[in-house]
Amino acid sequence: MRLLGYFRSSTSYRLRIALNLKGLDYDYVPVNLVTSEQKDTAYTSRNPFGSVPMLEADGRDRAQSMAQIEWLEEAYPEPPLLPTAIEDRFTVRELAYAIATETHAVNNLPVLKYLADPLGHSKDEIDTWYRHWLKRTFDPVEARLAQLGTGEFLFDAPGLFEVVLLPQVYNARRFDFDFSEHPHITRIEAACLARAEFQRAYPDNQIDSPDYKGPAGE
Amino acid sequence: MRLLGYFRSSTSYRLRIALNLKGLDYDYVPVNLVTSEQKDTAYTSRNPFGSVPMLEADGRDRAQSMAQIEWLEEAYPEPPLLPTAIEDRFTVRELAYAIATETHAVNNLPVLKYLADPLGHSKDEIDTWYRHWLKRTFDPVEARLAQLGTGEFLFDAPGLFEVVLLPQVYNARRFDFDFSEHPHITRIEAACLARAEFQRAYPDNQIDSPDYKGPAGE
Repeated sequence: MRLLGYFRSSTSYRLRIALNLKGLDYDYVPVNLVTSEQKDTAYTSRNPFGSVPMLEADGRDRAQSMAQIEWLEEAYPEPPLLPTAIEDRFTVRELAYAIATETHAVNNLPVLKYLADPLGHSKDEIDTWYRHWLKRTFDPVEARLAQLGTGEFLFDAPGLFEVVLLPQVYNARRFDFDFSEHPHITRIEAACLARAEFQRAYPDNQIDSPDYKGPAGE
Repeated sequence: MRLLGYFRSSTSYRLRIALNLKGLDYDYVPVNLVTSEQKDTAYTSRNPFGSVPMLEADGRDRAQSMAQIEWLEEAYPEPPLLPTAIEDRFTVRELAYAIATETHAVNNLPVLKYLADPLGHSKDEIDTWYRHWLKRTFDPVEARLAQLGTGEFLFDAPGLFEVVLLPQVYNARRFDFDFSEHPHITRIEAACLARAEFQRAYPDNQIDSPDYKGPAGE
């Protein structure tokens, strides 16, 4: 498998975590979003969305991170990213899809670029926008986690929820989001960051990051 | 089952189609988004996201439309909204999740409201925003459909893709989107709108629509 991504793209980060949790080997191929490499015809002929991550797996170029992850879960079921019971699977997906649609999508790089040009907003206004959508989703996610009474992870082991949560928490820390009222989210964050699968997936530990200092954990 | 929704909410529309395709009986309970009924404590204590649709089913208040639909597919598998083969399921999800995350999420009502206030954008600027994100997803969806060589539907019968597509096409027509280069999308639209499951789910045919003229097809 090859994962075409960008170190700081949170959907690329999702896929790195998911592949690591599945124990699947993959080659990470950086796509430079700053120079818009993902808009080249050579790329869009394979992925018309012009997006990262693109997962080359089992003879097919796959776009859309949530579809990629649901596919990984079906094609490579062990270890699972979703619990077995239908009700528990709903619990995970409700929170994962809330973050994917209501925070990530609205704070994605193309949207932030549009706010700057053509809409002409300042960095301060864009940062306020960013934190607004984080809070609007992290508050109810925190409320649901409190209702559920979670431990280190939403269920026994990290899965789809943690795959989607951690990249968004990483972004939130870059934008100085105030996590003082989110003890469940930050406890899960700490438990995930202690694990090798998440460390190897971490943006700063990717070869296209300016902070790259060699493979994580070596 | 009870579906708490709003006639023009495209995620509520998704659920109405999905429930109809499954042949499941449900009561439709309007939630008035214009008076922000979904922000009342009585509502948010059950759905902390303060969003529609909320699906009351099997003793649980369920938020997040994509999680609701994936749950319906697992809890009520027949007739299916996803094909059987893993590769075909990926085909459907790639396109459905592209629309859910890259168009719908960015054009959702809370985002449009934020563009108006506090950001102060005019109706023209917001309409341009809306069409920008429609085009950015409908173009690659159309390209994928051309690659796949689809007929009336993406597969043999309407499923998750059509459930997500039709509400977005409805919105697009309200915003005068130019569909002249999207023959696959408009062919699938026409095939869906000819079916009773889609007609009964149509926004204008809901009791909270000002255009309501009685149950569809009677």
